[in-house]
Amino acid sequence: MTTADVKAFVFDVFGTLVDWRGGVAREAAVFLQRHGRSGQEADAFADAWRARYQPAMQRVRSGERPFTKLDILHRENLEAVLHEFGIEAKQIPAAELDEFNLAWHRLDPWPDTVEGLARLKSQYIIAPLSNGNVRLMIDMAKHGGLPWDAILGAEVAQAYKPSPEAYLRTAGILALAPGEVCMVAAHNSDLAAAQKCGFRTAFIPRPHEHGASQTTNLKPEHNWDWVATDLVDLAKQLGV
Amino acid sequence: MTTADVKAFVFDVFGTLVDWRGGVAREAAVFLQRHGRSGQEADAFADAWRARYQPAMQRVRSGERPFTKLDILHRENLEAVLHEFGIEAKQIPAAELDEFNLAWHRLDPWPDTVEGLARLKSQYIIAPLSNGNVRLMIDMAKHGGLPWDAILGAEVAQAYKPSPEAYLRTAGILALAPGEVCMVAAHNSDLAAAQKCGFRTAFIPRPHEHGASQTTNLKPEHNWDWVATDLVDLAKQLGV
Repeated sequence: MTTADVKAFVFDVFGTLVDWRGGVAREAAVFLQRHGRSGQEADAFADAWRARYQPAMQRVRSGERPFTKLDILHRENLEAVLHEFGIEAKQIPAAELDEFNLAWHRLDPWPDTVEGLARLKSQYIIAPLSNGNVRLMIDMAKHGGLPWDAILGAEVAQAYKPSPEAYLRTAGILALAPGEVCMVAAHNSDLAAAQKCGFRTAFIPRPHEHGASQTTNLKPEHNWDWVATDLVDLAKQLGV
Repeated sequence: MTTADVKAFVFDVFGTLVDWRGGVAREAAVFLQRHGRSGQEADAFADAWRARYQPAMQRVRSGERPFTKLDILHRENLEAVLHEFGIEAKQIPAAELDEFNLAWHRLDPWPDTVEGLARLKSQYIIAPLSNGNVRLMIDMAKHGGLPWDAILGAEVAQAYKPSPEAYLRTAGILALAPGEVCMVAAHNSDLAAAQKCGFRTAFIPRPHEHGASQTTNLKPEHNWDWVATDLVDLAKQLGV
């Protein structure tokens, strides 16, 4: 199979295309200061909020609860994180928490993201294959100028990555064989799950996703189809 | 409720945004001539193919068959129409019929469509709420330059218009109340179904959708929220 067989590139989003930690910490700093806390805790707050991401989705993947979109999981997790930080969610107006929860809709793209996507879009179908829900992805795209052809991912597939259904149903909606779709991610585990489903794979490192002292996903851990320094480099390797 | 409450405009596509009859007839003429027939039959062929559209979806709406995407219904209907025109589908390579079936993916937008959508996109979420499936809508958008924020509609909602689920699930995916979504269509029946679900409504006439002698949907038949001459006029009325 060659590059010519690939018809669509689908993307992990949180970490791969946008800086979730910086974006959430920026809004957390304002929130914490408004509630008499130090903005210094903002990075830790973002990390704590994100730490509840996989366990919340695992309850859906395991069948313990029906598919529930990420905005709702984020909102539930926010109350738990506030408690962890000694802030009682019940003391805060629900509308303020709802608004803070939308921090995930306002994450900034990495510097190469928009140019890389635009170049890939000139020759391929491009869509997110994110665990973020459709409205979250729409708002983020309008905020950061991400030029998607369509919004796909967990909500449309009704399954969270790395469940095989998330990948296979996305290929089905695109009316493509798995081998005609390439998953792009900064996370080796996402690519491993996609590859098991027959997808092509492309790795780009995001060594500061978790801050300066990141130790994971610094390099490709398997024999991925493409390894690029960033999205623009991936586009160049593909000749677009 | 005022304009300020509307957050998203969703669109009927076949007829409202693109010229399905002209596009299908253009490809039908080539197909018919290749098979020893007159290109003069092309408009009638397009009409006959389209005539099988509602009955095919009705079998899904009634529960007689599970949700089946439009590409498959179009492909089934193509074989029936060929038979109606005295051409035996079995005599033609499946790949050629598959390719002809994609005529629906290559329909041209009306002259005002792209500018109108781009203007509306500057202030609102815009997405198709079409009975066309996701891949069909992606290909059409890439062909005609339709600048969607997301691809929604029957396949994502798993329900065909005018079933209420098609509208209500779309609003749910957008995380909007029905009254925050405006349906735009050239068909009064589509708007009536959307309005029953609580949507706002906008009518634009497409008096040549069915050719020069069209008799239906020449004007608004109810008290829609907006009536415009075309999409650019609608954008102007909305001040965008």
